[in-house]
Amino acid sequence: MRVGVTGATGRMGREILAEASERGVDVAFAVNRGDGHGDVAGVDVEPADDFPDLLAERAPDVVVDFTGPVSSVEYVRACADAGVPVVVGTTGFSDAQLDELQSYGDDAPVLVGANFSRGIQALRQAVQSAVGSLPEYDVEVTETHHNRKRDAPSGTAKVLLDAVDDARNRDAERVHGREGDQPREEGEIGVHARRAGDVTGEHEVLLAGNDEVLELTHRAGSRGVFAAGALDAAEWLTTADAGFYRFTEVAARL
Amino acid sequence: MRVGVTGATGRMGREILAEASERGVDVAFAVNRGDGHGDVAGVDVEPADDFPDLLAERAPDVVVDFTGPVSSVEYVRACADAGVPVVVGTTGFSDAQLDELQSYGDDAPVLVGANFSRGIQALRQAVQSAVGSLPEYDVEVTETHHNRKRDAPSGTAKVLLDAVDDARNRDAERVHGREGDQPREEGEIGVHARRAGDVTGEHEVLLAGNDEVLELTHRAGSRGVFAAGALDAAEWLTTADAGFYRFTEVAARL
Amino acid sequence: MRVGVTGATGRMGREILAEASERGVDVAFAVNRGDGHGDVAGVDVEPADDFPDLLAERAPDVVVDFTGPVSSVEYVRACADAGVPVVVGTTGFSDAQLDELQSYGDDAPVLVGANFSRGIQALRQAVQSAVGSLPEYDVEVTETHHNRKRDAPSGTAKVLLDAVDDARNRDAERVHGREGDQPREEGEIGVHARRAGDVTGEHEVLLAGNDEVLELTHRAGSRGVFAAGALDAAEWLTTADAGFYRFTEVAARL
Amino acid sequence: MRVGVTGATGRMGREILAEASERGVDVAFAVNRGDGHGDVAGVDVEPADDFPDLLAERAPDVVVDFTGPVSSVEYVRACADAGVPVVVGTTGFSDAQLDELQSYGDDAPVLVGANFSRGIQALRQAVQSAVGSLPEYDVEVTETHHNRKRDAPSGTAKVLLDAVDDARNRDAERVHGREGDQPREEGEIGVHARRAGDVTGEHEVLLAGNDEVLELTHRAGSRGVFAAGALDAAEWLTTADAGFYRFTEVAARL
Repeated sequence: MRVGVTGATGRMGREILAEASERGVDVAFAVNRGDGHGDVAGVDVEPADDFPDLLAERAPDVVVDFTGPVSSVEYVRACADAGVPVVVGTTGFSDAQLDELQSYGDDAPVLVGANFSRGIQALRQAVQSAVGSLPEYDVEVTETHHNRKRDAPSGTAKVLLDAVDDARNRDAERVHGREGDQPREEGEIGVHARRAGDVTGEHEVLLAGNDEVLELTHRAGSRGVFAAGALDAAEWLTTADAGFYRFTEVAARL
Repeated sequence: MRVGVTGATGRMGREILAEASERGVDVAFAVNRGDGHGDVAGVDVEPADDFPDLLAERAPDVVVDFTGPVSSVEYVRACADAGVPVVVGTTGFSDAQLDELQSYGDDAPVLVGANFSRGIQALRQAVQSAVGSLPEYDVEVTETHHNRKRDAPSGTAKVLLDAVDDARNRDAERVHGREGDQPREEGEIGVHARRAGDVTGEHEVLLAGNDEVLELTHRAGSRGVFAAGALDAAEWLTTADAGFYRFTEVAARL
Repeated sequence: MRVGVTGATGRMGREILAEASERGVDVAFAVNRGDGHGDVAGVDVEPADDFPDLLAERAPDVVVDFTGPVSSVEYVRACADAGVPVVVGTTGFSDAQLDELQSYGDDAPVLVGANFSRGIQALRQAVQSAVGSLPEYDVEVTETHHNRKRDAPSGTAKVLLDAVDDARNRDAERVHGREGDQPREEGEIGVHARRAGDVTGEHEVLLAGNDEVLELTHRAGSRGVFAAGALDAAEWLTTADAGFYRFTEVAARL
Repeated sequence: MRVGVTGATGRMGREILAEASERGVDVAFAVNRGDGHGDVAGVDVEPADDFPDLLAERAPDVVVDFTGPVSSVEYVRACADAGVPVVVGTTGFSDAQLDELQSYGDDAPVLVGANFSRGIQALRQAVQSAVGSLPEYDVEVTETHHNRKRDAPSGTAKVLLDAVDDARNRDAERVHGREGDQPREEGEIGVHARRAGDVTGEHEVLLAGNDEVLELTHRAGSRGVFAAGALDAAEWLTTADAGFYRFTEVAARL
C-alpha cells in the first residue's frame, strides 16, 4: 500500500507518518498547506499547492486526511476526481460540508470517521447497551481534549450523542454548559467540552437515576491509537467500491 | 404482599423496612439474632429464636434475607420447609453453602442476588459488550465498600468477573492484590477490594490495551437502591414456582 | 441548643431535622412557605406566615436556613431584627442579595456557607496547594448534582473557582460550556455543571499541562454530611458575636 | 551538559534519549546490558561491558539510569568511583540496596527519584494537605501501570504512602489486596496495584469517612513527563556537592 498524507505537519499527520514508517507502509507524498514543510519522521513534507497534479503523478493507493473542514473538502474533491480512496479523520464539518463529502462517494471510496480507535467503538456499543437497559435515566456527556482543539464538542462526542439518541429512539435537546437558575429539562442531554493541557482525548457518558450512577469512560493514551486505526481503515478502503462509508459501520470488519 | 424480614437491625434490614414502609408493604415480622431488637422504622424487631414457629404463625408471602452466610442458610432452610418464597441478598457464601441453598429450590422459590440494582445489571451487560469487542485487552476489577464489609471481593465483583469469563469464554486466574517483583501474567484478572468510610458500593471494570483504556463504573448512591430492587424481586417471587433463581436472570422481567 | 428550621420540607430541611433528632437537639420550630406542612422526622412543620412573631415566641438559640435566595433574605432580615444567630446554607444569591445579608451581620451573627462538609474544605485546601505548585497548568471545574437543582454552577463550585483565583492571584475568565470553533483562551477556566438523577453532589478540579493531569474530586454520599456540618456551625454560632461569617473561614475552628 | 544513559533500549532509556535530542543535550554514551543494541533516537547504543572504562573515556557530566535494581547498584557504584553525578530513576530497590546507594553519596552526587513529574510532587503535597485536614478518614492507594511493570506497588505509590504516614504521624499497616472474610482494621491502608495494557502511570489516593469521599488522582500522559523531569534533575545535579538526594526534596528547586 502506498499512502498519501495531507496535513502532514499537524498533530495527527505526524502520527500517521510515524505509524506508516513503523508498519513499513510506503508514503507516496506528504503535503501541508501554509508554511510548515521539511522533514517529518524521515519524510519530506511538500507544499500542497498542486494537489490534483500530485495525485496524478504519485498515484497513491489511498489518501489519509486529518486537516480542517475547509481544506478537507477540497482534498476529498480532488481525490474523488482522481478516483483515489480517501480516509477522512478531520472533524468539525457543517452539515453542508458533510453532504458535499457524501456526494464524492459517487466517484471514489470516501470513509469518514470521528475517532479511529477500537476502544471508542466498544464504548459506543456499551453506551447503547446501557442506555437501552436504563432508558429513563438522565444522560450527560463530558469530553476532555488538549487546549488547542478548535471544535467543541468533539466529533466523537457527537457520535456518542447520536448513539444515545438511537438507543432512546428520540432526538434529545443538547445543552452546552449550564449557567443561571433553572432545573434540568426532562430528556435533555448536557454536553461538556473540557479543554486542558495536552490531553489526547477522554470521553465519558454518565447515566444517573434511582440513586445510582453509571459512568462509561474511554481514555486515549496517545494519538498513535487513532493513527493505527486510520491506517487499518485505509488498508480496507483500498479494497472497497466507490461509496460513502462511516468508520462506525466498518470498524467491525477491520 | 406481606413480607418477613431477617437481619432487621442490619444495614440492609433497616433499608428493607424503610422501603416497605414507603411502599405500604405490610411487614409480617422483622427478626434479628443476638441483641439488637426494638423499634426500626416503626416496626418492632423481635428475636429470631423460633424462626420456624414464626413462619407458621405469621404466614408471610415472602421473606427477605440480608444477613451472614451461616444465618442465611438456616433461614432459607426454614423457609423451604415451610414452602415460603425467600429473597437472599446475603453474600460471601462458600460453594458448599451455595449448593445447599440451591437444593432448597426444590421445595420453595429461592432467589439469590449479589446486587439488586438495575444499574449493576446494565453494567454487567455493558461489560460483556465491551469485553466481547476487545477480547485481548487486559481486565482489572476494582470495588469499593464501607469499612465494615467482611467479605472481599464483593459478591457483585464476582458476578462481574464471571461476566468477563463468559464473554472471553475462559476461566481467568484472579489475582487479589499484587506485591513483589513479577510482571502480569497474560489473561489474569486483578481484583482489588477497597474498604473505606461509608461508601455504599462502587464497582469499576477497567479494560486496557493498544494505548487506550475503557473504564466502566457503577456507583450506588444509597442502599435504598438495593432495597427497592430486593422488594421488586420479592414481589415477583410470590408469583413464581419452586426453584432456584439468580437475580441476574430475572432482573429483566421485573 | 434549640434550633429553628426554615424550608423544613425541602431536601436539606428534612436532613437538618433528622440530624437534630439524632443528636437530641431541640427543635424550637420548623417552618415552610407554601403548602407542604405536616410531620417531618417527628416534627410538626408549620406555615411560615408570621415568622417574626414565631421568632419572638419560641426564642430559638439559632436558626438554620436552606431555602431559596428571596425567602432566605427575608428570613435573615427577621433574625437580624430579633438578634437571633442564623446559619444560611441557601445558594444562588445575587451580589446585591449577598450585600444585604452581609449588612445584617451588624445586628446578629450571620454565617453563610455554600457547603458545610469537612471534605469540601479539605478539597479547597488541596486545590490551592496543587494550583500553587502548578500555576501555569490549565484548570477546569466540573460539578454534578441532582436534576432538580436550579442554580448552576453550584455555590461550592464558585468557592473552588475563587480558591483557584486566589492561588493564581488573578481573576480568570469563567467559561460555561464550550460550543463552536475556537481554541481555549490562555488562563480561562471552563466550568461544567452536570445535572443528573439524584446525585448528592460531586466536584472535580482538573489541572493539566506538560502531558500530565491532576484530578481532585469530592463526592458527597448523602445530604447528611451537609446537615451535620450545618449543625456544627450552628452550635459555634451561638457563641459568636454579631458579624458576617463565611463557613470557609470558621470551618477549622469547629 | 553531556549525559551518559544506561538502560538505553528500555522504555525510559528511549525517552531520555529522545528528550535529550529534543533539548540539544549531548549524549556522551548510551549503553545497554544484554542483547539490545543499535540505533535509538539517532544514538548508537553500545554494550555496557566495560562501564568504568567508558566513564573514564567519555567523561559525561552526569549519568541517567533507568534500569533494574541489581544493574542500577553496579552502575551507581562505578559512577561514585569515578566521581560522576548520577540520577537514578530505577525503582524496586530493597532496603539494603537503598542503603548501598546512599553510601555512594559520600563520593559523588547521587539523586534517587521514584517519579520525576511535577504533577506527582503536587499530588504528594495535596495528599498531605488533605490527610492533615481529615486525619481519621480511611485511606486507600490505587496505582495503575502497563502490564510489563515488574515491581508492585510502584515506587511512586510508596512515596505517597510515606506521605500519608508523615501527615498522620504513624506507620500504617499496608494491606496488599483483600480476599476472604474480615472487616478493615482501623488505620490500615489498602494498596492496590493494577496492571493493564500500556498505561503510563496513574496514582489515586482515596480518603473516605463521614459519608463523603475525596479522590486525589495523577495521570501521566506519556513517559516524556518523566524524562523531562529526570533531565531537569540531571542538570541541577551537575552543580551539586557529593551527597545523597531524593527528588522529592529537590523538586521545588528545579
